Amino acid sequence: MSNSIQFNTFNTLLQKVKEKKPLVHHLTNYVTVNDCANIVLALGASPIMADYIGEINDILPRADALVVNLGTINEQKAETILKACEIANANNIPVVLDPVGIGVSSFRLGILRKIIGEYKLAVIKGNASEISIIAGLSGESKGVDVGLGDMITPLSLRELSMKLDTVIALTGPTDYITFGEKTITITNGSKYLAQLTGTGCMIGSMIGTFATVTSKYIEAAALGVLIMGVAGDICHDIAQEDGMGSFKVKIFDVVSKIDENVLRKVAKIENE
Amino acid sequence: MSNSIQFNTFNTLLQKVKEKKPLVHHLTNYVTVNDCANIVLALGASPIMADYIGEINDILPRADALVVNLGTINEQKAETILKACEIANANNIPVVLDPVGIGVSSFRLGILRKIIGEYKLAVIKGNASEISIIAGLSGESKGVDVGLGDMITPLSLRELSMKLDTVIALTGPTDYITFGEKTITITNGSKYLAQLTGTGCMIGSMIGTFATVTSKYIEAAALGVLIMGVAGDICHDIAQEDGMGSFKVKIFDVVSKIDENVLRKVAKIENE
Amino acid sequence: MSNSIQFNTFNTLLQKVKEKKPLVHHLTNYVTVNDCANIVLALGASPIMADYIGEINDILPRADALVVNLGTINEQKAETILKACEIANANNIPVVLDPVGIGVSSFRLGILRKIIGEYKLAVIKGNASEISIIAGLSGESKGVDVGLGDMITPLSLRELSMKLDTVIALTGPTDYITFGEKTITITNGSKYLAQLTGTGCMIGSMIGTFATVTSKYIEAAALGVLIMGVAGDICHDIAQEDGMGSFKVKIFDVVSKIDENVLRKVAKIENE
Repeated sequence: MSNSIQFNTFNTLLQKVKEKKPLVHHLTNYVTVNDCANIVLALGASPIMADYIGEINDILPRADALVVNLGTINEQKAETILKACEIANANNIPVVLDPVGIGVSSFRLGILRKIIGEYKLAVIKGNASEISIIAGLSGESKGVDVGLGDMITPLSLRELSMKLDTVIALTGPTDYITFGEKTITITNGSKYLAQLTGTGCMIGSMIGTFATVTSKYIEAAALGVLIMGVAGDICHDIAQEDGMGSFKVKIFDVVSKIDENVLRKVAKIENE
Repeated sequence: MSNSIQFNTFNTLLQKVKEKKPLVHHLTNYVTVNDCANIVLALGASPIMADYIGEINDILPRADALVVNLGTINEQKAETILKACEIANANNIPVVLDPVGIGVSSFRLGILRKIIGEYKLAVIKGNASEISIIAGLSGESKGVDVGLGDMITPLSLRELSMKLDTVIALTGPTDYITFGEKTITITNGSKYLAQLTGTGCMIGSMIGTFATVTSKYIEAAALGVLIMGVAGDICHDIAQEDGMGSFKVKIFDVVSKIDENVLRKVAKIENE
Repeated sequence: MSNSIQFNTFNTLLQKVKEKKPLVHHLTNYVTVNDCANIVLALGASPIMADYIGEINDILPRADALVVNLGTINEQKAETILKACEIANANNIPVVLDPVGIGVSSFRLGILRKIIGEYKLAVIKGNASEISIIAGLSGESKGVDVGLGDMITPLSLRELSMKLDTVIALTGPTDYITFGEKTITITNGSKYLAQLTGTGCMIGSMIGTFATVTSKYIEAAALGVLIMGVAGDICHDIAQEDGMGSFKVKIFDVVSKIDENVLRKVAKIENE
């Protein structure tokens, strides 16, 4: 597809979310959960963050997507996540995985192995460190935001995507969104996005939101990644001049106002 | 009472909170807890969010109100909530209940039944879906924010209020605050309030705050609902023009500056 | 040291954080955790908030500092905190303790006793109520923000610091940062800082951040306290004129832009 067709598609996804007002179930961390809820609402969808295992059977089947984020995980949340993945798969609800900080502990790595091994995921979104760990490459994670992982190549992304039969969205200075033979690259963004907690988590939430209105999850993933990159570009000068408080406010402003015109004007996106 | 007297009363409540600096204990969800704390502080009161059952006996008797919010509930928090309601009742501490998303699970509905059945509540604040479930009417909850429930009538609100001997605050395009024969209606607000997580929870926190300085809980509930509606009206154009990040900031600005003059100028409130 | 030398030192700490990008592990409350993460990022460091005891062995040894905050504590988190203090001590990782609301429950007081009794702390940061409780003086805590405690004297702070062999940072209208015979006093700040949740917690996070780049923890503590005070001074008029939403945004703006020049211009700091 040419970029022109892509923007039409993105516009369709944005409109469909506003019409359908899908319910996006999150099992996520308590650090950035408020931002995730607000970004879903900013797109016109409806978030729910219930994470008690005793409620999942009742709530999840009514949801339109499930976003799983491994930040601030513990044993109870891990159990809920595994059960939720099972229910989501049984109900054909797309699952978006954000493997936050999987390099930091063997516990988190164990949960990841179970998720990857037993369930079907629509999209995995991570930084180079996280994706390289998933790819079985060596990788060392420092905190949750700083990735190494220049060993990830477009080729290995394609292999990983095909092996897991899932879209891989690798975020970084250049973002790669890969499904099978197809890769979309995005070079939008600002260094200040990495200095604001939750920008990665919010990308996961946006991908989950768009995955409710298309079965082409590569498009959902590309749009989620693109919107944050475009917002970063637009807000970069505000971070530089005013600071990080104003930057955060403006990111939400931009996302809540995002439309095809803004995307066409600012997006740096290419298909390979 | 005429509206003129009402504004005097509201002014008195606002002033009393600033003088007394009451302690408002919350058992609430982790999605919007920061916003709830800040809205209580913005009114001049002091929030405490401790939710460990092993601390409730020590903390709650010193509090001036208890706000119970059922969002992101789990078994531990449910136990804490039930114990806290018992202690609050024993100590004549007013309890404000925000039955967030009670339609989403049988677990949450079970907790609600226990709270309603066993404890005295000062105010129940909910949307049409939540209140209709409490009223025993059919109701289906989509997410936590979207309510159906046109089956709720002013008459059924009065019946519910009398049956439970509690103030019912029904929020929506028109807000109804009912206690026995008396109903206050408010038509302030903005569609953007529903696109920001926590605006409902913050209403509950504000009602709890005002319930510490009056025993006429219908006034406390009306003022809590009114302030958010007035803030929504004042900030509506900012959401429209700048976006949801700026809208959130301005909501806190307006609430922290609210006074009788602003209320008189913007409020759309009527007594029936 | 003269104040002039102090500003050079502060500048060095600010620069070193930006170069080293240290990892600051938090075991903190869920009310202000997002603000804590963002303030650490605003200084150029990297936060991690993982609090599951099953991950601590893997994560903490790689961290450069540990910030322990007793807000919204429960039994699980208390266990994690004690284990984390042990690991931190064994690995020479500085521990900063923010004994939030220790006056509110005997449970919290019991945890505090264990921490103080068994582990080496780099810095204890608290308000007068919290510090007076630690000092074994009588003290009654109302909520988590309001402190009494005029019984704390510079002399008793020095005694406490020497007895515990730790830096004591007492925040209030005048801040006292004491280590042994040395005391730094700061008179910056704004009454509005107390009307925003998290400003105290963020001071703890900043102290933890600076403790990663100096072994003179009194300097780390003084700089953390000073930055929030300076930000309060700079943002005071915004709170007064615009309100608390704008105040919060501007606090983050100022901290993310803080440098030696701003500190020299605004700081009211003295060595005794």
